[in-house]
Amino acid sequence: MRLGIIGLGRMGGNIARRLVRGGHECVVYDRSEKAVAALAKEGMTPATSLEDMAAKLDGPRIFWVMLPAGAPTEQTVTDLSGIGQAGDVIIDAGNTYYKDDMRRAKMLGEKNMHYIDIGTSGGVWGLERGYCMMIGGPKEQVDLLDPIFDTLAPGYGDIVRTHGRDEPDDRAERGYIHAGPAGAGHFVKMVHNGIEYGMMQAYAEGFDILAQKASDKLPEEERMELFLPDIAEVWRRGSVISSWLLDLTAQALAKDKELSQFSGHVSDSGEGQWTIEAAMEEAVPAHVLTAALYARYRSRMDHTFGEKLLSAMRFGFGGHVEMPQ
Amino acid sequence: MRLGIIGLGRMGGNIARRLVRGGHECVVYDRSEKAVAALAKEGMTPATSLEDMAAKLDGPRIFWVMLPAGAPTEQTVTDLSGIGQAGDVIIDAGNTYYKDDMRRAKMLGEKNMHYIDIGTSGGVWGLERGYCMMIGGPKEQVDLLDPIFDTLAPGYGDIVRTHGRDEPDDRAERGYIHAGPAGAGHFVKMVHNGIEYGMMQAYAEGFDILAQKASDKLPEEERMELFLPDIAEVWRRGSVISSWLLDLTAQALAKDKELSQFSGHVSDSGEGQWTIEAAMEEAVPAHVLTAALYARYRSRMDHTFGEKLLSAMRFGFGGHVEMPQ
Amino acid sequence: MRLGIIGLGRMGGNIARRLVRGGHECVVYDRSEKAVAALAKEGMTPATSLEDMAAKLDGPRIFWVMLPAGAPTEQTVTDLSGIGQAGDVIIDAGNTYYKDDMRRAKMLGEKNMHYIDIGTSGGVWGLERGYCMMIGGPKEQVDLLDPIFDTLAPGYGDIVRTHGRDEPDDRAERGYIHAGPAGAGHFVKMVHNGIEYGMMQAYAEGFDILAQKASDKLPEEERMELFLPDIAEVWRRGSVISSWLLDLTAQALAKDKELSQFSGHVSDSGEGQWTIEAAMEEAVPAHVLTAALYARYRSRMDHTFGEKLLSAMRFGFGGHVEMPQ
Amino acid sequence: MRLGIIGLGRMGGNIARRLVRGGHECVVYDRSEKAVAALAKEGMTPATSLEDMAAKLDGPRIFWVMLPAGAPTEQTVTDLSGIGQAGDVIIDAGNTYYKDDMRRAKMLGEKNMHYIDIGTSGGVWGLERGYCMMIGGPKEQVDLLDPIFDTLAPGYGDIVRTHGRDEPDDRAERGYIHAGPAGAGHFVKMVHNGIEYGMMQAYAEGFDILAQKASDKLPEEERMELFLPDIAEVWRRGSVISSWLLDLTAQALAKDKELSQFSGHVSDSGEGQWTIEAAMEEAVPAHVLTAALYARYRSRMDHTFGEKLLSAMRFGFGGHVEMPQ
Repeated sequence: MRLGIIGLGRMGGNIARRLVRGGHECVVYDRSEKAVAALAKEGMTPATSLEDMAAKLDGPRIFWVMLPAGAPTEQTVTDLSGIGQAGDVIIDAGNTYYKDDMRRAKMLGEKNMHYIDIGTSGGVWGLERGYCMMIGGPKEQVDLLDPIFDTLAPGYGDIVRTHGRDEPDDRAERGYIHAGPAGAGHFVKMVHNGIEYGMMQAYAEGFDILAQKASDKLPEEERMELFLPDIAEVWRRGSVISSWLLDLTAQALAKDKELSQFSGHVSDSGEGQWTIEAAMEEAVPAHVLTAALYARYRSRMDHTFGEKLLSAMRFGFGGHVEMPQ
Repeated sequence: MRLGIIGLGRMGGNIARRLVRGGHECVVYDRSEKAVAALAKEGMTPATSLEDMAAKLDGPRIFWVMLPAGAPTEQTVTDLSGIGQAGDVIIDAGNTYYKDDMRRAKMLGEKNMHYIDIGTSGGVWGLERGYCMMIGGPKEQVDLLDPIFDTLAPGYGDIVRTHGRDEPDDRAERGYIHAGPAGAGHFVKMVHNGIEYGMMQAYAEGFDILAQKASDKLPEEERMELFLPDIAEVWRRGSVISSWLLDLTAQALAKDKELSQFSGHVSDSGEGQWTIEAAMEEAVPAHVLTAALYARYRSRMDHTFGEKLLSAMRFGFGGHVEMPQ
Repeated sequence: MRLGIIGLGRMGGNIARRLVRGGHECVVYDRSEKAVAALAKEGMTPATSLEDMAAKLDGPRIFWVMLPAGAPTEQTVTDLSGIGQAGDVIIDAGNTYYKDDMRRAKMLGEKNMHYIDIGTSGGVWGLERGYCMMIGGPKEQVDLLDPIFDTLAPGYGDIVRTHGRDEPDDRAERGYIHAGPAGAGHFVKMVHNGIEYGMMQAYAEGFDILAQKASDKLPEEERMELFLPDIAEVWRRGSVISSWLLDLTAQALAKDKELSQFSGHVSDSGEGQWTIEAAMEEAVPAHVLTAALYARYRSRMDHTFGEKLLSAMRFGFGGHVEMPQ
Repeated sequence: MRLGIIGLGRMGGNIARRLVRGGHECVVYDRSEKAVAALAKEGMTPATSLEDMAAKLDGPRIFWVMLPAGAPTEQTVTDLSGIGQAGDVIIDAGNTYYKDDMRRAKMLGEKNMHYIDIGTSGGVWGLERGYCMMIGGPKEQVDLLDPIFDTLAPGYGDIVRTHGRDEPDDRAERGYIHAGPAGAGHFVKMVHNGIEYGMMQAYAEGFDILAQKASDKLPEEERMELFLPDIAEVWRRGSVISSWLLDLTAQALAKDKELSQFSGHVSDSGEGQWTIEAAMEEAVPAHVLTAALYARYRSRMDHTFGEKLLSAMRFGFGGHVEMPQ
C-alpha cells in the first residue's frame, strides 16, 4: 500500500523502512529536511509539506503520524483535518492520551474522515523484529490497512503458542490487535505501561530487600552479603518471576552489581498517571500500580514538605505544646 | 498505697510525684544516685538497690518499672523475678513488645508472682493532667492497684461525655482501662501508635498537596500560593478533621510556615512495625498504617538501591539490551 | 447586607436563617415553592425565579448558590451569568470541582461579573454553631462580603488559641479564610476531605487489628478479646490520636460494639478522587490518601476480576501449563 | 553420590527420580509405606525408618528432607540431629522460614553436623526440566554436594545468555547458586515469592482496569468492551511486560475470558508475610509487595470491621452526634 509517514525520528524512520522492505510505498515528511533527504536517498518519496504529501497520495489517503504526544501531534492532526478529504485516514501511532483520541475521532468523523490510534511497543528493535501494536478505530479502516499492520508486526516468531487458544483471529499471535474503537489502542497501551511500573517496582523492592540484608541496620549475626548478579541470573531459569524485565535486571547487575552509574532519580511518562485516573473513574482499587508511580515521584525529591510536617508534629509531642482541653 | 518506682527519668519521676501528691508512698530507685537523691529531697524513700527496695516494701510488694524498653527493662524484670516473692506484682509501664509481656507473665506465674503491663500516654504533661493508661494483667491485681491508677489518671476533666455510653465501668471515662490479660495493655497502646502514624501521614500528604499547589511543576495558570498557617487554623474550627495532631500542626505552622528548622528525616519507634506484624498475623489489610511507616523509612534515605534498579531497567529499554526470544 | 440565596435545602435554608438572625436580608429562591414559602413565613423575601430575585436585589447583586455540585449548580451559574450585570457577585458554596470554579470565574470575568467559591464545613450544626468556610475569589469582593462571612462563621468559641500565632488577620481563628483566587476555596476543602479519608482509614485499620485479635486465625494462646468501646473512650483522654472522628467512633461503639447495623459498603464523594488527581499533577506521593480511597472502592465489591486472575495464575503454577523456553 | 531422601511426595519423589537418572543412588523414606514401595520398584533402596536410612548410608551421610515446612520438617530435623553423626549433612529443601534455618544450623553445628537449606523452584516440571535452586550453607559441604545440584539443575538450556556476564562461577547460569550461609537459600527464595506477589498484583490490577472499562460505572460514551485474551496474547510479543506469568494469564484467558471458574479468594503462603517482615527489619519501604499481600487478605473476606467503622463514622457526620467543643 501507499501511505504518508509524518515524523521521521527513530521510530518513524524505521517504520518507513520496514514498510518499504515489505513492499509498501512511503511518502515521507519531517520538519527536518535532512531527515527527509536521508529517507529519499533510500528510495522513498520526499514531501516538502503536509499539503505536498497529500498531493502525492491517492484517495483514500493514509497519513501515519509518528510524533511526540501533545502539541506536535495535536497540531499535525488538526492541520491534516483541514488538508484531508472525506474517506482519508489519519493514524496516530504516538503516545497520545486516549481521551484525546476519542475527541479527535469525533471531530474528524464530522468531516467523514477516519482516525486510528496505535499504541506501539518495540522501540529500537522494531525495524528488525517488528512492532507490537494495539490498534483503535473503525473496523472497516483497520481491516483495510491490514497489509500495513501485517508487515510491521513481528509475526509468530518462535514464541511458544498459548495452550488452549482457538480464536479464529490470529492477529494477536502475529503481534497486533484491533482493540476497539478510537482510543482503545492507546488505552490498552496505557494500561500496559501502568503494569510495567508495577512490575518494575516489585523487582526494585525485592532486590532492595536482598541488598539491605547486608545493612548495618541489622544485628551483625543476621546480616548476609548476597550476590545479586547471580540471584537475578538464577531466577531467569524456570522461576515463576522470569520475565524480560528480569533479563534486563540480570544484564544491569552483571555489568555493575552496585549500579553505581545510576542516581536513582526515576522519571515517569504520562501513562502511569493516566492509568491511575482510569482506575479511579472505574473505582478499581489499584494499590500496586499507584504505589509504583508514587515511588518514582518520591525518588526525584530530596524531602517532601510532608516529611518536615511529620517531624514538626513529633517535636510537638515533646512537651512544648498545649494539650487539647 | 506503698510501691517501689524503678527508673526516675522524666516519666518515672513525675509518676512518683503525682502518686505522692495523691497520698501514696513511693520507694524510689535509679542507677543514677543523683536522681534518687532529688526525689528523696521531695520526701520519698530512697533505695540503693532493687534488694534494698524490696526490703523497704511490704508484701505483696508492688514494683513499678519505668525504664526504656528492651534490655534495661528485661534485665530489671529478670532481677526482680529473683528478688520478689510469691504474691508480688511487677508492673512494666514502658513501651514493651506485648509478646515479651506474655512471656514474662508466664515466667513470673511459675513463681506465683504477677505481671502487669501498662501502655502509658501523656508524656511530659502527665504530672499536671494525668496519664492515659491501657492496662494488661490479672483482674485481681489490677483491681487491687486501682487506687494507684485512679490517682495517676486524668479523671473526667472537661471532655464532653460520649453520647450513648451506659457502661457501669467508668474507668475509661476517667482515663484508664483494664484492656485484658498480660500483654493487652501494650497491645492496645501499640495499635494506638500505629493509628497515630497513619493520621500523621494523612495530614502530611494533605499539606504537601496544598504546599505543592504553588510548584512550578504545574502550568503557571494552575498554581496557587496557599497560606498553610491559616488553613490549619481554620480546620480547627468545627471541621471533620479537627484533632490534637491538627492543633500541633497549626502551632508548628504559626511559628514557621516553611518548617525550615526540620530536615524531614522521620524516625519511627518499634510500635509502628509491631502493629504491621500484628496485622499480618491476623490477615488484616492495613494499607494506610503500613504506607505511613514506609514513608518514614524512605524519609531517612538518600536513594534506595531499588530506585537505581528502576533506572537501570529503564536504561535497558533504551536499546542496549537483548530482547527475549 | 442584602443577598439572594438559591437552593433552600438543609444547608441553604439554615444559612439564610443564620444570616437573618445576624441582621442581613435574604431574598430566597428554590425550585420547590414549598421551600420558598417556608422561609417567607420566617420573614424572608420570596422570589419566583432567578429573574425575580435579580429584580429584588440592588446592584451590585450578591447571589449565593447552594445547590448540589455538577449539573444543578452549573446550570444556575450559567443562567445567572445571563441575568446578572457587571459588578454582580455569584457565590458557589457547594462541593464544586475547583477547575470548574476557575473556568467559571474566567467566563464571568469577561462580563465583569465576579465569582466566589466557598468550601463549607459544618453541616447540620452550622445554624447553631456557624460554618467553617474556605473562600476563593477576588480580594475586593471577598472583603466586601466580610459582614456575611463574619455572621456565618463560628467565631472564636472556646477553642484553645494556637500558641505562637501572631497573624494580624484573625479570620482563620473566627472560622473562615480567604484562601486565594477563584477555585482556592474548593481546592482547600477538597484536600480537607482527602485528609479525612486518610484519617478515617487509619482508625478503621487500627480498630480492625484490635477486633481481629480475637480471631481464630490466631493460635488460641495469642488471642485476646478486647473491648473496643472502652478503648475508643480512653483514647479520647489526652492521647495523641484524640480527634472529633475518634469521638464519633466512641459514640458508635458505645451504641453497638459490633456495629452490626452497618454493612461496610463505603461510599466516596468526588473530593477523594480529585485530591489524588491533584497529587499526581503535582507529583506528590500520596500513598495514604490513595489507599484510603481504594479501600472504599474495594468495600463496595464482592470480588474483583483481578482477584480471579490471581487465582487463575496460581492455578497455572500447579502444573497444567507450559513453562517458558 | 549416595544420599537419603525423606518425604516422597510429588517433589521428593521426582527429585529422587531425577537423581537416579543422573547416576546417583537414593535411599528413600516416607511415613507412607506405599510411597516407599513405589520408588523401591523403580530400583531405589527403601528405608523403614530414619534409623534404617542412616544405617544404609555411609558417613558422611547426606539426608535430603523434602517435607512440608513447619512441624513435619522441624520434627524430622530434630530426629536426625539425634541419629546423625559428626560430619553428616542435613538438607532442608522445603519452604522453611530462614530464621529457623539459622537456628538449626547453629544447633547442628554444636554436634559438628552440617545444615544446608535450599529454596527450590520448578514444581511439577522439575523432573523433566530440572529444579532452580537457591542454596544456603557452609561452602565446603555445598561444594561437596555439587554433583547432586548439577544433576538436579536445569542446565543452560536454550535461554539467551545474559550480555555482559563474566563471572567465573557459571552455576547461576546452570540454574543454582550458593547464596550464602545457612538461611540464605530460603531467604532468597522468600524474596522471590514476595516479588511474585507484587508482579501478579500488577497484572491483576491492570487487567481489572481493562475489564472495568466496560463497566456501567462509566458514562456510556466512555465505555469500551476490550477482548482480554487477545490483549494478553499480543503483550507476549516483544512487549516490556512479557513474562512467564503473562504466559499463564494468556492461557487462562484463552480458556475462559470470564475466568468464571475462579471465585477470587486468593491464598497466600508464609513467604509473602516473611518478606514484609524482612523489609521492616531492614527499614526498606516495600509499598508494592505489601499492597499485593494485603489485596490477598482482603480477597478472602466479606467485609472488614474497619469498613463498618468507616460507615459508622460517616453516619456520625450526618447530624446525629455532638461536635467537639
